[in-house]
Amino acid sequence: MTSETINDPATLAAVEAGFDEYEQALTTNDVPVLDTLFWNSPHTLRYGATENLQGYDAIREFRAMRPGKGLMRTVIDRSVTTFGTDFAVANITFSRKGEARVGRQSQTWVRLDGQWRVVAAHVSWMDPS
Amino acid sequence: MTSETINDPATLAAVEAGFDEYEQALTTNDVPVLDTLFWNSPHTLRYGATENLQGYDAIREFRAMRPGKGLMRTVIDRSVTTFGTDFAVANITFSRKGEARVGRQSQTWVRLDGQWRVVAAHVSWMDPS
Repeated sequence: MTSETINDPATLAAVEAGFDEYEQALTTNDVPVLDTLFWNSPHTLRYGATENLQGYDAIREFRAMRPGKGLMRTVIDRSVTTFGTDFAVANITFSRKGEARVGRQSQTWVRLDGQWRVVAAHVSWMDPS
Repeated sequence: MTSETINDPATLAAVEAGFDEYEQALTTNDVPVLDTLFWNSPHTLRYGATENLQGYDAIREFRAMRPGKGLMRTVIDRSVTTFGTDFAVANITFSRKGEARVGRQSQTWVRLDGQWRVVAAHVSWMDPS
Protein backbone atom coordinates (compact mmCIF):
# COMPACT_ATOMS: atom_id res chain seq x y z
CA MET A 1 0.00 0.00 0.00
CA THR A 2 1.28 3.48 -0.80
CA SER A 3 0.39 6.80 0.77
CA GLU A 4 -1.43 7.88 -2.40
CA THR A 5 -4.33 5.58 -1.55
CA ILE A 6 -5.20 7.23 1.77
CA ASN A 7 -8.75 8.59 1.95
CA ASP A 8 -9.82 7.85 -1.60
CA PRO A 9 -13.12 9.80 -1.75
CA ALA A 10 -15.37 6.90 -2.83
CA THR A 11 -13.89 4.58 -0.22
CA LEU A 12 -14.17 7.21 2.48
CA ALA A 13 -17.82 7.85 1.59
CA ALA A 14 -18.61 4.12 1.83
CA VAL A 15 -17.00 3.79 5.24
CA GLU A 16 -18.64 6.97 6.54
CA ALA A 17 -22.00 5.52 5.46
CA GLY A 18 -21.23 2.27 7.27
CA PHE A 19 -20.20 4.19 10.35
CA ASP A 20 -23.41 6.25 10.29
CA GLU A 21 -25.48 3.09 9.94
CA TYR A 22 -23.69 1.56 12.92
CA GLU A 23 -24.13 4.67 15.08
CA GLN A 24 -27.85 4.83 14.31
CA ALA A 25 -28.25 1.13 15.09
CA LEU A 26 -26.26 1.39 18.31
CA THR A 27 -28.18 4.30 19.77
CA THR A 28 -31.54 2.72 18.91
CA ASN A 29 -30.32 -0.79 19.91
CA ASP A 30 -31.13 -2.20 16.48
CA VAL A 31 -29.49 -5.54 17.23
CA PRO A 32 -29.95 -7.18 13.79
CA VAL A 33 -28.13 -4.30 12.08
CA LEU A 34 -25.35 -4.34 14.68
CA ASP A 35 -24.98 -8.09 14.20
CA THR A 36 -24.82 -7.65 10.42
CA LEU A 37 -22.15 -4.96 10.57
CA PHE A 38 -19.73 -7.07 12.61
CA TRP A 39 -17.63 -9.62 10.74
CA ASN A 40 -18.99 -13.13 11.33
CA SER A 41 -15.73 -14.78 12.41
CA PRO A 42 -14.11 -16.21 15.53
CA HIS A 43 -11.33 -13.62 14.92
CA THR A 44 -13.71 -10.70 15.48
CA LEU A 45 -13.06 -8.97 18.76
CA ARG A 46 -14.79 -6.28 20.81
CA TYR A 47 -13.47 -4.72 23.99
CA GLY A 48 -16.35 -2.89 25.67
CA ALA A 49 -16.39 -0.58 28.68
CA THR A 50 -17.04 -3.51 31.02
CA GLU A 51 -16.37 -6.66 28.95
CA ASN A 52 -13.84 -8.27 26.62
CA LEU A 53 -15.49 -10.32 23.87
CA GLN A 54 -13.59 -12.64 21.52
CA GLY A 55 -15.46 -14.00 18.51
CA TYR A 56 -18.62 -13.09 16.67
CA ASP A 57 -20.79 -15.43 18.76
CA ALA A 58 -19.73 -13.83 22.05
CA ILE A 59 -20.43 -10.36 20.63
CA ARG A 60 -23.86 -11.40 19.34
CA GLU A 61 -24.77 -12.95 22.69
CA PHE A 62 -23.77 -9.74 24.46
CA ARG A 63 -25.94 -7.63 22.12
CA ALA A 64 -28.92 -9.91 22.66
CA MET A 65 -28.63 -9.64 26.47
CA ARG A 66 -27.90 -5.92 26.77
CA PRO A 67 -30.72 -3.65 27.98
CA GLY A 68 -31.75 -1.34 25.14
CA LYS A 69 -32.06 1.81 27.27
CA GLY A 70 -29.38 4.41 27.94
CA LEU A 71 -27.38 3.84 24.75
CA MET A 72 -27.92 7.34 23.33
CA ARG A 73 -24.75 9.37 23.07
CA THR A 74 -23.37 12.52 21.48
CA VAL A 75 -20.35 12.33 19.20
CA ILE A 76 -17.71 14.95 20.10
CA ASP A 77 -14.92 14.21 17.60
CA ARG A 78 -14.88 11.85 14.65
CA SER A 79 -11.94 10.62 12.58
CA VAL A 80 -12.28 8.18 9.69
CA THR A 81 -9.25 7.19 7.61
CA THR A 82 -9.24 4.73 4.72
CA PHE A 83 -6.30 2.79 3.24
CA GLY A 84 -6.70 1.53 -0.31
CA THR A 85 -10.19 0.32 -1.16
CA ASP A 86 -10.71 -2.30 1.56
CA PHE A 87 -9.43 -1.02 4.91
CA ALA A 88 -10.35 1.74 7.30
CA VAL A 89 -10.25 2.94 10.88
CA ALA A 90 -13.10 4.92 12.47
CA ASN A 91 -12.62 6.63 15.81
CA ILE A 92 -14.92 8.85 17.85
CA THR A 93 -15.00 10.48 21.23
CA PHE A 94 -18.44 10.88 22.77
CA SER A 95 -20.44 11.93 25.82
CA ARG A 96 -23.39 10.18 27.43
CA LYS A 97 -25.93 11.60 29.88
CA GLY A 98 -25.14 10.53 33.45
CA GLU A 99 -21.48 9.76 32.70
CA ALA A 100 -18.91 12.44 33.54
CA ARG A 101 -16.08 10.77 31.62
CA VAL A 102 -15.39 11.10 27.89
CA GLY A 103 -16.12 7.94 25.90
CA ARG A 104 -13.95 6.65 23.06
CA GLN A 105 -14.87 4.16 20.35
CA SER A 106 -12.33 2.69 17.91
CA GLN A 107 -13.33 0.43 15.04
CA THR A 108 -11.35 -1.25 12.28
CA TRP A 109 -13.41 -1.85 9.14
CA VAL A 110 -12.53 -4.25 6.32
CA ARG A 111 -14.37 -4.73 3.02
CA LEU A 112 -14.75 -8.51 2.88
CA ASP A 113 -16.33 -10.04 -0.22
CA GLY A 114 -17.68 -6.58 -1.08
CA GLN A 115 -19.24 -5.79 2.31
CA TRP A 116 -17.79 -3.37 4.86
CA ARG A 117 -17.59 -5.06 8.27
CA VAL A 118 -16.17 -4.19 11.69
CA VAL A 119 -13.39 -6.69 12.43
CA ALA A 120 -12.27 -5.20 15.76
CA ALA A 121 -13.71 -2.61 18.16
CA HIS A 122 -12.75 -1.03 21.46
CA VAL A 123 -14.98 1.17 23.61
CA SER A 124 -13.90 2.76 26.89
CA TRP A 125 -14.32 5.68 29.25
CA MET A 126 -11.25 7.85 29.70
CA ASP A 127 -9.83 7.97 33.22
CA PRO A 128 -9.14 11.41 34.72
CA SER A 129 -5.45 12.21 34.20
CA MET B 1 -10.52 -8.60 -0.21
CA THR B 2 -11.68 -12.18 0.13
CA SER B 3 -11.71 -14.42 3.16
CA GLU B 4 -8.93 -16.55 1.68
CA THR B 5 -6.38 -13.84 2.48
CA ILE B 6 -6.94 -13.88 6.26
CA ASN B 7 -3.84 -14.73 8.30
CA ASP B 8 -1.48 -15.46 5.44
CA PRO B 9 1.46 -17.00 7.39
CA ALA B 10 4.19 -14.65 6.11
CA THR B 11 2.04 -11.57 6.76
CA LEU B 12 1.07 -12.79 10.21
CA ALA B 13 4.74 -13.43 11.08
CA ALA B 14 5.68 -9.91 10.00
CA VAL B 15 2.95 -8.30 12.11
CA GLU B 16 3.71 -10.49 15.14
CA ALA B 17 7.34 -9.35 14.86
CA GLY B 18 6.23 -5.71 14.72
CA PHE B 19 3.97 -6.24 17.68
CA ASP B 20 6.79 -7.85 19.71
CA GLU B 21 9.10 -4.97 18.86
CA TYR B 22 6.47 -2.48 20.01
CA GLU B 23 5.80 -4.34 23.27
CA GLN B 24 9.50 -4.50 24.08
CA ALA B 25 9.89 -0.79 23.31
CA LEU B 26 6.84 0.16 25.35
CA THR B 27 7.81 -1.68 28.50
CA THR B 28 11.37 -0.34 28.37
CA ASN B 29 10.18 3.14 27.29
CA ASP B 30 12.32 3.06 24.15
CA VAL B 31 10.82 6.25 22.75
CA PRO B 32 12.68 6.31 19.38
CA VAL B 33 11.37 2.84 18.51
CA LEU B 34 7.84 3.73 19.61
CA ASP B 35 8.00 6.88 17.49
CA THR B 36 9.23 4.89 14.49
CA LEU B 37 6.48 2.29 14.74
CA PHE B 38 3.65 4.85 14.65
CA TRP B 39 2.62 6.18 11.25
CA ASN B 40 3.97 9.71 10.76
CA SER B 41 0.70 11.37 9.75
CA PRO B 42 -1.85 13.84 11.12
CA HIS B 43 -4.41 11.01 10.67
CA THR B 44 -2.68 8.81 13.25
CA LEU B 45 -4.64 8.58 16.46
CA ARG B 46 -4.04 7.15 19.92
CA TYR B 47 -6.60 6.97 22.70
CA GLY B 48 -4.72 6.26 25.94
CA ALA B 49 -6.01 5.47 29.42
CA THR B 50 -6.03 9.16 30.37
CA GLU B 51 -5.59 11.07 27.07
CA ASN B 52 -6.92 11.31 23.52
CA LEU B 53 -4.20 12.15 21.01
CA GLN B 54 -4.87 13.09 17.38
CA GLY B 55 -1.91 13.19 15.01
CA TYR B 56 1.63 11.89 15.05
CA ASP B 57 3.06 15.06 16.61
CA ALA B 58 0.70 14.90 19.61
CA ILE B 59 1.59 11.24 20.16
CA ARG B 60 5.32 11.93 19.92
CA GLU B 61 5.05 14.82 22.37
CA PHE B 62 3.18 12.58 24.83
CA ARG B 63 5.89 9.88 24.59
CA ALA B 64 8.63 12.41 25.20
CA MET B 65 6.90 13.76 28.34
CA ARG B 66 5.82 10.47 29.89
CA PRO B 67 7.76 9.14 32.90
CA GLY B 68 9.58 5.97 31.89
CA LYS B 69 8.80 4.06 35.10
CA GLY B 70 5.86 1.74 35.75
CA LEU B 71 5.25 0.75 32.12
CA MET B 72 6.00 -2.97 32.62
CA ARG B 73 2.97 -5.18 32.08
CA THR B 74 2.03 -8.83 31.58
CA VAL B 75 0.09 -9.86 28.49
CA ILE B 76 -2.91 -12.07 29.33
CA ASP B 77 -4.50 -12.69 25.92
CA ARG B 78 -3.20 -11.81 22.49
CA SER B 79 -5.04 -11.83 19.17
CA VAL B 80 -3.45 -10.80 15.88
CA THR B 81 -5.38 -11.05 12.60
CA THR B 82 -4.09 -10.03 9.16
CA PHE B 83 -6.10 -9.15 6.05
CA GLY B 84 -4.32 -9.45 2.73
CA THR B 85 -0.66 -8.43 2.81
CA ASP B 86 -0.96 -4.85 4.13
CA PHE B 87 -3.48 -4.68 6.95
CA ALA B 88 -3.81 -6.14 10.46
CA VAL B 89 -5.33 -5.73 13.90
CA ALA B 90 -3.46 -6.63 17.09
CA ASN B 91 -5.29 -6.81 20.41
CA ILE B 92 -4.12 -7.75 23.88
CA THR B 93 -5.45 -7.80 27.40
CA PHE B 94 -2.87 -7.22 30.12
CA SER B 95 -2.26 -6.70 33.81
CA ARG B 96 0.02 -4.20 35.53
CA LYS B 97 1.31 -4.22 39.09
CA GLY B 98 -0.65 -1.83 41.30
CA GLU B 99 -3.70 -1.75 38.98
CA ALA B 100 -6.61 -4.05 39.85
CA ARG B 101 -8.37 -3.59 36.50
CA VAL B 102 -7.64 -5.51 33.32
CA GLY B 103 -5.96 -3.44 30.59
CA ARG B 104 -6.76 -3.65 26.90
CA GLN B 105 -4.70 -2.45 23.95
CA SER B 106 -6.01 -2.38 20.38
CA GLN B 107 -3.82 -1.46 17.42
CA THR B 108 -4.47 -1.27 13.70
CA TRP B 109 -1.33 -1.88 11.63
CA VAL B 110 -0.91 -0.96 7.94
CA ARG B 111 2.07 -1.76 5.71
CA LEU B 112 2.80 1.63 4.14
CA ASP B 113 5.53 1.84 1.51
CA GLY B 114 6.81 -1.52 2.76
CA GLN B 115 6.92 -0.67 6.47
CA TRP B 116 4.43 -1.91 9.07
CA ARG B 117 3.13 1.02 11.10
CA VAL B 118 0.46 1.56 13.77
CA VAL B 119 -2.17 3.90 12.31
CA ALA B 120 -4.59 3.84 15.27
CA ALA B 121 -4.37 2.63 18.86
CA HIS B 122 -6.62 2.51 21.91
CA VAL B 123 -5.56 1.62 25.45
CA SER B 124 -7.92 1.46 28.41
CA TRP B 125 -8.67 -0.13 31.75
CA MET B 126 -11.86 -2.16 31.88
CA ASP B 127 -14.51 -0.92 34.31
CA PRO B 128 -16.00 -3.44 36.72
CA SER B 129 -19.27 -4.71 35.25
